[in-house]
Amino acid sequence: MEKTIPTIPELCDHVKITENSKHNQLPDIVKKMLSGWSTKECFDHISPVCIPSQEKIIDIALQARRIIFPGYFTTTKLHASNIEYYIGKETMDLYELVCEQITMAIRHDCRRNRRLCTNCEQESAKLALQFMEKLPEITATLAQDIRATLAGDPATKSPDEVIFCYPGLLATLVYRLAHELFLLEVPFVPRIMTEYAHSQTGIDIHPGAQIAPGFFIDHGTGIVIGETTIIGENVRIYQGVTLGALSLPRDAGEKLRSTKRHPTIENDVIIYANTTILGGTTTIGEGSVIGGNSWIIESVEQGSKVFLKKPELIVHHANGQKTHL
Amino acid sequence: MEKTIPTIPELCDHVKITENSKHNQLPDIVKKMLSGWSTKECFDHISPVCIPSQEKIIDIALQARRIIFPGYFTTTKLHASNIEYYIGKETMDLYELVCEQITMAIRHDCRRNRRLCTNCEQESAKLALQFMEKLPEITATLAQDIRATLAGDPATKSPDEVIFCYPGLLATLVYRLAHELFLLEVPFVPRIMTEYAHSQTGIDIHPGAQIAPGFFIDHGTGIVIGETTIIGENVRIYQGVTLGALSLPRDAGEKLRSTKRHPTIENDVIIYANTTILGGTTTIGEGSVIGGNSWIIESVEQGSKVFLKKPELIVHHANGQKTHL
Amino acid sequence: MEKTIPTIPELCDHVKITENSKHNQLPDIVKKMLSGWSTKECFDHISPVCIPSQEKIIDIALQARRIIFPGYFTTTKLHASNIEYYIGKETMDLYELVCEQITMAIRHDCRRNRRLCTNCEQESAKLALQFMEKLPEITATLAQDIRATLAGDPATKSPDEVIFCYPGLLATLVYRLAHELFLLEVPFVPRIMTEYAHSQTGIDIHPGAQIAPGFFIDHGTGIVIGETTIIGENVRIYQGVTLGALSLPRDAGEKLRSTKRHPTIENDVIIYANTTILGGTTTIGEGSVIGGNSWIIESVEQGSKVFLKKPELIVHHANGQKTHL
Repeated sequence: MEKTIPTIPELCDHVKITENSKHNQLPDIVKKMLSGWSTKECFDHISPVCIPSQEKIIDIALQARRIIFPGYFTTTKLHASNIEYYIGKETMDLYELVCEQITMAIRHDCRRNRRLCTNCEQESAKLALQFMEKLPEITATLAQDIRATLAGDPATKSPDEVIFCYPGLLATLVYRLAHELFLLEVPFVPRIMTEYAHSQTGIDIHPGAQIAPGFFIDHGTGIVIGETTIIGENVRIYQGVTLGALSLPRDAGEKLRSTKRHPTIENDVIIYANTTILGGTTTIGEGSVIGGNSWIIESVEQGSKVFLKKPELIVHHANGQKTHL
Repeated sequence: MEKTIPTIPELCDHVKITENSKHNQLPDIVKKMLSGWSTKECFDHISPVCIPSQEKIIDIALQARRIIFPGYFTTTKLHASNIEYYIGKETMDLYELVCEQITMAIRHDCRRNRRLCTNCEQESAKLALQFMEKLPEITATLAQDIRATLAGDPATKSPDEVIFCYPGLLATLVYRLAHELFLLEVPFVPRIMTEYAHSQTGIDIHPGAQIAPGFFIDHGTGIVIGETTIIGENVRIYQGVTLGALSLPRDAGEKLRSTKRHPTIENDVIIYANTTILGGTTTIGEGSVIGGNSWIIESVEQGSKVFLKKPELIVHHANGQKTHL
Repeated sequence: MEKTIPTIPELCDHVKITENSKHNQLPDIVKKMLSGWSTKECFDHISPVCIPSQEKIIDIALQARRIIFPGYFTTTKLHASNIEYYIGKETMDLYELVCEQITMAIRHDCRRNRRLCTNCEQESAKLALQFMEKLPEITATLAQDIRATLAGDPATKSPDEVIFCYPGLLATLVYRLAHELFLLEVPFVPRIMTEYAHSQTGIDIHPGAQIAPGFFIDHGTGIVIGETTIIGENVRIYQGVTLGALSLPRDAGEKLRSTKRHPTIENDVIIYANTTILGGTTTIGEGSVIGGNSWIIESVEQGSKVFLKKPELIVHHANGQKTHL
């Protein structure tokens, strides 16, 4: 008896899929990928030394927020009898997390710069403690930021709303944490932390910036605050404001890394939406108000009000007339 | 026989870490944190009364989206025979979720304002039902928003693309839900909801704004629409547009909370990218087109086309010449 | 003996809640919702054919990132002995995921356009392989993007920082993946992928744009790059830049879908923050530098430096004087 082998059109769908599968061609792609590593065709981290974890660094920021604003971001009901246990545990956990990530960051940095042993575990225990010791001060500073927000925003109804959902407060909180780690010269971690806030809020504050208490960001999307910016007390900034550097030559990167490239904003300044202020020697004097859409590359003395000369608008009316606005 | 106690350098790494650990210094930090609470150094929610949950409020928005666009955001295959069961269950679940969060929001508000009992559970059952009753209308309005998007965007290929991934539609959907809760005077929940959309899309629409059907946001990042803005039918808005308030004195917060501070945009208006329109008495008349990068603080009559007078650009050519563009 | 039935005020809280519950009114709302489907009041996907999954499409992007930058986004320690196994497995998994989503996308498209069978499973196996074959090239291109970032940004300290947390790199990576799927004419998937990056970074790059290697986005929030934009090698772009289309008549959608509507940026161009460049015939010549806040709707020859004529600012000084800046 002859056995008939079915031709492909007679095979059931499942068999056809197998016949048409391209799995057997994948190993070639894998080999091609592998051949690129450790060449200039690729950046890789193939090493038994762990690298800091983006996810865990975000956890540090969120865990610190639970300690700084107790009762807001937890389902645990807090009251006088359990608060010390709760905060005690959260604080211990945060310390562990911070130690671990600082250790990894230092190790990874050592490997990259081929340094001798820096006793990373002892060092990170010390640095993590110094970071933890700053928490009460950060809490008090954020309380001032919240009061500034309540004073300045007619759409805010309560501090709870600010704490729960103001993107400006989230960005400021994460910046204040990251700034302490930046001052302790912890590699990687501060920048990964502020980029988390950037991705959540559209507000990009470099951890190196210096920002005094009473800082209020309204709306916030599109704000950029550069590494060497200095901001005084009770400053208010709206969406789309750039505090940036003047334009750089193409190969500027290396030379400029450590000079002051971004502006100084003194106490009690308000900067309205979409204004750009550039340059390391540009200072906005105390109590000044800078109108929206301005472009400022030189200093402004204290108590000034600066407004863009109303740009001319051309209006073509429905009746065919043309006027200026 | 003499027993030698090893000196630290001889200890194994693990023991050294323990010796160097700073854990014993953490309780001091905890005490310092605790001493700040209930003072002006800190905002806390230490109370046995639950506070609304940011996470659950986001769930309300996403659950409502599954009901409004059935079959798009679920792995359940929907067909004529199971659709009533599916939507029935989803609707019941949504109602529970809305009741629970409204109850918490009212309770928290009572506690904060030291009000007498407002029968929050009965009240929230009633408010949640009123919210649910709006869902069919919101669905029909969003259908108009989607048709407006398809008509206006040459890069859109199908309504599915709009529903799946247009940030403008997500922001509009969340706003339309939050606006109903705002009209019902539910505290906290509406704002937390729209700030979720803000964080996902960079589009910041206050739940108090009034926006008619046929609303189309293109790209959207950086858009700000203030609390007392009124927007007519079939309005189209591009990225970076601000519909805002004129600049406020520093202490304006309290007094201005209930006046109309943001503009009115009539039917069939188009506002191009990065334009700013400010002020509670500013009205953009029906059918007007406002060009990009404009700055408008007075009313424009219907049928106008407003464009910025081309700003002068200085061009330094490669050959050393300098011209104007 | 008479039995007393308790009046409502005497009932326990739980019973009162039941009495006050509005659950019995929900079925009416469900019926109203159901009656809207398949009418113009609603967009729904009620069909036994599965629709592509937003979540799985995001997984494709993240899985590809793990393969392109091995060791960065995993807790697995990679070394010479396990790297082939690790990448082999990740590559196989990615292929499965891509096949599955392409199949769903083609099927959904067929159903929508009422097409005959397109052998979607065979077709998607072929397309998925073509996508996978592009991975080594995408990896090499991204290595050039990273080097361009390091050369241009004085605040960057290492490639690791760029890979971990630069929003510009995430947006570029996702665009480069989505662009290959766009070229293969896969429906839905490319756009859903780039909108994920948009939501994470505020950077909106259409998958149809053509962007050569060495692309560096700094800060990035608010950037919009349209479907028919062409960008040459080593181009640098800052936050808020729009590469867009000139304004469209209201009903333009259909007619314009396939013409070049967005500008061409030649090699080695720098475009500073918040500049808008519009129009399908606008070309920025090789090596040009475009200053911030500019508005350009005509071509600029190679080697030009274009700056906005400093807009006039009015300064009201603290002493009552008024000057111009």
